[in-house]
Amino acid sequence: MQKPLILVTNDDGITAPGLRALISYMRAVGDVVVVAPDSPQSGMGHAITLDSTLYSKKVSIDLEDEAPLEYSCSGTPADCVKLALQELLDRKPDICVSGINHGSNSSINVIYSGTMSAAIEAGIEGVPAIGFSLCDYSWEADFEPARDHIIRIVKQAIEHGIPKGVVLNVNIPPLEKSALKGIKICRQARANWKEKFDKRTNPMGKDYYWLTGEFELLDKGEDTDEWALSQGYISVVPTQFDLTAHHAIQDINNWNL
Amino acid sequence: MQKPLILVTNDDGITAPGLRALISYMRAVGDVVVVAPDSPQSGMGHAITLDSTLYSKKVSIDLEDEAPLEYSCSGTPADCVKLALQELLDRKPDICVSGINHGSNSSINVIYSGTMSAAIEAGIEGVPAIGFSLCDYSWEADFEPARDHIIRIVKQAIEHGIPKGVVLNVNIPPLEKSALKGIKICRQARANWKEKFDKRTNPMGKDYYWLTGEFELLDKGEDTDEWALSQGYISVVPTQFDLTAHHAIQDINNWNL
Repeated sequence: MQKPLILVTNDDGITAPGLRALISYMRAVGDVVVVAPDSPQSGMGHAITLDSTLYSKKVSIDLEDEAPLEYSCSGTPADCVKLALQELLDRKPDICVSGINHGSNSSINVIYSGTMSAAIEAGIEGVPAIGFSLCDYSWEADFEPARDHIIRIVKQAIEHGIPKGVVLNVNIPPLEKSALKGIKICRQARANWKEKFDKRTNPMGKDYYWLTGEFELLDKGEDTDEWALSQGYISVVPTQFDLTAHHAIQDINNWNL
Repeated sequence: MQKPLILVTNDDGITAPGLRALISYMRAVGDVVVVAPDSPQSGMGHAITLDSTLYSKKVSIDLEDEAPLEYSCSGTPADCVKLALQELLDRKPDICVSGINHGSNSSINVIYSGTMSAAIEAGIEGVPAIGFSLCDYSWEADFEPARDHIIRIVKQAIEHGIPKGVVLNVNIPPLEKSALKGIKICRQARANWKEKFDKRTNPMGKDYYWLTGEFELLDKGEDTDEWALSQGYISVVPTQFDLTAHHAIQDINNWNL
């Protein structure tokens, strides 16, 4: 039987340790092709490059034998997936995996996430897709404890298929292997960021801001990703790109429009 | 009674005719403050500026008496809303309106939309919000035919309140006033873009791509935004930022994880 073809991408850039870890894990599952941004794209949301040129080149980062085919791309994570599916791959991949992100994409973070935008783009184009994030922003984060769980999630997704219109958002707590309790299927917790703008003055005397903030959890549910992560579980949220709030249609139909 | 405070923003930039039209319409409804990008941000999705500085300055574009307070911002549409709510406004606005976009944000376009990302950011922060888009990409597009409809939608939203966790995505067909049939509350049509990358060679001999594509409607429903627009109606889709595909949770719970 032909091995599954796995498209690997991310938003931290093609040299990020989290991507390199995911590539090595996916080589235990199938044939890997990498198409990833040539520079970090965190916080890019679902941006695409409309008014500007896109460059792509074949690169060799792992120099061992049978290293996977890899392309870097000057665009956003969503651009990478579009370019991979339309131009760079010979056939439709069996699955697209994005990550492993250095940092959480749980709860409301999914909205700002370049990692998840790549997965969602694949989902829109009919390719089963999963975004993986480790809740540790450090470049030296340890991805190994989650290795077996990541491989199992991808194998199960290939075996069962992911429901149409759905993409998986997987977040992993930053724990040792023995402390990881398992996997929970969750809903996205309600939360937002309490922004703070740090206002400074540049050497030319002009004011500027840095965006900072604190995560504010607004949800005590024990069926949420935040709850699962706080208890030592890996959270899996089935995520959709039909944004319709169906429950609100009837309500707004009562307006005088 | 105090007039409602209306935050106006967009993704085409602070000088875009669609924004200038929306500002003038909103002045018939309440007190207006503008915080908009200093340059076009189309296709930015829900990007935010994490690793870079943000600049903002007070600007005067309309020079008439009692012109609204306006700020330009070097960031994305979502940045503009965050900066407005945390730093620039004296009080929480009663509503945030984004647009009028030069071009459609119906169906799957909502995912890539900077216009809607600004509205969604306001929604996340608890401010009722509406994105407006005219399905005409031209800089000379005529916004006037929709004027009264836009004002009515905003007034009704202020009067009734928008359900919590919901943001309105309003798209307007590019028709004369007499041809506009009214307003329909809809769901987001299923669709995607059939991408085509136009591959070229730059003067230095290096290959590059332009992203182009064709919109592919995958949905024949007569309750969708695409259907409403095709029939001459303004479409209003209640849109949510809880991306959980609740219907898929049970299914994935049957996997061997």
